[in-house]
This record gives sequence, structure tokens and C-alpha cells, in this order.
Amino acid sequence: MTPIPPSQLIEALNWRYATKVFNRGKIIPAETWAALEQTLVLTPSSYGLQPWKFIVIQDKVLREKLVPFSWKQRQVADCSHLVVMTVKKEMTEAHVDTFINRIAEVRGGTADALMGYRNMMMGDVVKGPRGQQAAQWAKHQAYIALGSLMTAAALLGIDSCPMEGFVPEEYDRILDLAKDGLTTAVLLPLGYRSEIDPYASLPKVRFEAQQVIEHR
Amino acid sequence: MTPIPPSQLIEALNWRYATKVFNRGKIIPAETWAALEQTLVLTPSSYGLQPWKFIVIQDKVLREKLVPFSWKQRQVADCSHLVVMTVKKEMTEAHVDTFINRIAEVRGGTADALMGYRNMMMGDVVKGPRGQQAAQWAKHQAYIALGSLMTAAALLGIDSCPMEGFVPEEYDRILDLAKDGLTTAVLLPLGYRSEIDPYASLPKVRFEAQQVIEHR
Repeated sequence: MTPIPPSQLIEALNWRYATKVFNRGKIIPAETWAALEQTLVLTPSSYGLQPWKFIVIQDKVLREKLVPFSWKQRQVADCSHLVVMTVKKEMTEAHVDTFINRIAEVRGGTADALMGYRNMMMGDVVKGPRGQQAAQWAKHQAYIALGSLMTAAALLGIDSCPMEGFVPEEYDRILDLAKDGLTTAVLLPLGYRSEIDPYASLPKVRFEAQQVIEHR
Repeated sequence: MTPIPPSQLIEALNWRYATKVFNRGKIIPAETWAALEQTLVLTPSSYGLQPWKFIVIQDKVLREKLVPFSWKQRQVADCSHLVVMTVKKEMTEAHVDTFINRIAEVRGGTADALMGYRNMMMGDVVKGPRGQQAAQWAKHQAYIALGSLMTAAALLGIDSCPMEGFVPEEYDRILDLAKDGLTTAVLLPLGYRSEIDPYASLPKVRFEAQQVIEHR
């Protein structure tokens, strides 16, 4: 593995900002987009359970339909690719078993040999205390994907805008998520900043490092 | 901004895994660590409010004290740097005003000119519906930092292990967080994998892309 220089990371993170106006005509090239989808697939999650589905929307009509339920923010319609991060409302035994079988398939061995791991997950996020708040737990995992995808995108020179300002119930209805036991957690439109976005050139506002980082 | 090639991103993400055994003697060099702290500072958050404090622990005695409250996982003690991501339990008017003043300081202009933005935040995460669940909202933001920092670390060749398996109340007590209105959200030990970690060479388990990504 060839690491990148620390300075290149910082340059990309300083270049990144929450894009308010996207260049409507500019589409992310296929190879770059494939890497961003692969970033989503490779996102870490608690136990590796991947309690999510990422819906990538390019359909212009569908995206226009979402604008009124996105606090009228045009980014959902004007970006290149809109990622709607959805999560499972419940964590089920069936999902755990699908995951256990997938481990056996990828790493070899049997599901029986993974019984201890299966029981640990069942006793926590299915039948345990976290099972009561599985949607909340799953939403945390979606935010890992959000953080990872934004950072990955910046390193590839792709703009994005994290969005919590939308009506989840309406997203769920329009995207027909209930039938799959899913609900919308958070949005990430991706693409390219427009030349006319005044936010692109504003200095980034962060608290001083000593206010948010403490050493012990 | 010079983007990295998509292939380099994917290589780093495939190299990354949840490190179970750290190399106890190997410390992250200062320049690399500074970039990871800068990654934390630059993490995006809802409204830019940064409702967090990141506690970086290198003190060996303190870290040993945390092991029993971390499901006995040794990573918190054996890593190079332990990041305890803590968040504000409440979002206050004072925090919003500190942020508004910081915007005026960095971008010029007056706090008065930002009154509309201030009122929007106050009406949402302080006095609005999200204000009731401010700790939960803040925790989501911490998971953005988690996703971003893990991805950034991988690109710099630094190992990490996201950890939800700990007792937040005990962390809060040991780190004396209550006096600052903070609570522990999630942990990220960082450092270098040990040669003896059997997990380092296991194939990564993910669902097939078509199971977690849908195109519309």
C-alpha cells in the first residue's frame, strides 16, 4: 500500500466544502464514480453488519420530485449523482444469518463455526439493548458511510454536500422504502461546484484546534 | 488541488481493516499525526456547529484504566494514539453564539449580519425538534468524524479500529466529562497492526455491491 503524503490529504480536506450550487451539466466520469461506489461497499460498520442500502439517483424527474421535501435545496436535483443513504428499521435474525453465510462464503468454513459471533450479534443488536434502538444504531453506521464518502470524494476532486435538511417520511414514501424495511438516514449529492457558488471561495470556519482537541 | 487516482483510494480502503492487535512499540510520526488531528478539525458537521471534543490519549496508565470498560479490548491501551470522540449533551444558545462569533472572526463582518443563520440554528437544534435530541444529533456528527478519520488514516497508511463496545458512563466518569457537558460517543484507536494479528490477512467480508447499492 502506497500512502499519500499528509500534505495532500490536508489540501483535499481544505478544498472540500458543502457545495451549495452544483454545475448541472458536469457528470462524474465512470471510473471515478465506480471508486466512490466501491468506497460505499467497503465502508466499515459495527460487526460488519452493513445495515444499509445506498440509493444512487440520476433520474432527473425523480430528483425534481424530491426538491420540495429537501427544504427546497436544489443540490439534490442539480448534482451529478445523488446518494440517498437508507438504513434498516429493524435488525433481524434473517439479516444476521445472511451476513454469517456471507462470511463463510468469503472466508471459507461453515456457518456453524461462526455460532459464537452470531450469538454475540443476536444478543446485542437484535435481541439485546441495542435491538430496541436498531434504527438509531443503523443510522450511526450510515454516518460512517457519509464521513468516509465525503473524504474519499474530496481526495478524488469530487464535490459534495452533506444534507440532513429533508423530510424522511416523504423520502421513504417517494422511494417506496417501507416494503424493504428501510428508512432514509442522510443524503449526499455529489458532483462539481458551479463557478457561481459564492460559498466556494469563503474561508472555512472551524474552532481553533485547542478548543476541539484535548491531549491526555 | 491534485486528486489521487481512484485506484489508490481503493487500494487504501482494501488495505484498511478493524485492527485487533496493535504493534505496541510503534508510534505514529508527528507530521502524520498532525494531519490526522487536522482531519478532525476539518470534519464537516451539521450547520458547521462542531458539537464535539476529541480527546487524544497517550497516557499509558489512563488507557489501562479504560480497558475493563472497553469489553476488555486491548486496542485502547496498545495503539499509538487513542481518540475518544465526545459530544455535547445539549446544544446551547451560548455554543451557537460562540460559533456565530467565530464565523464573523474568520470571514469578516458582524454577528448581527448572521442573525438569520443564528435563528435557523436556534429554531432547529437548540429550541426546535432536534433540540430535544441534541445528544443524538451530536452523536451523528461524531460518526462523520469517525468515518472521515478512518478513511484519512488508511490513506496515510495508519491502522485503526472503530469501537462501539465500551461503557459510556464509565468513560464519562474516568475522563471527567460531565463538568464540560460532554459524553462519550465512539472510540478510534490508531496506530500500526501487529504482525501477529490474524485478522490482518483475512479477506474482507462485504455484501455484493448490487445488494447494497441500487440505481434509479
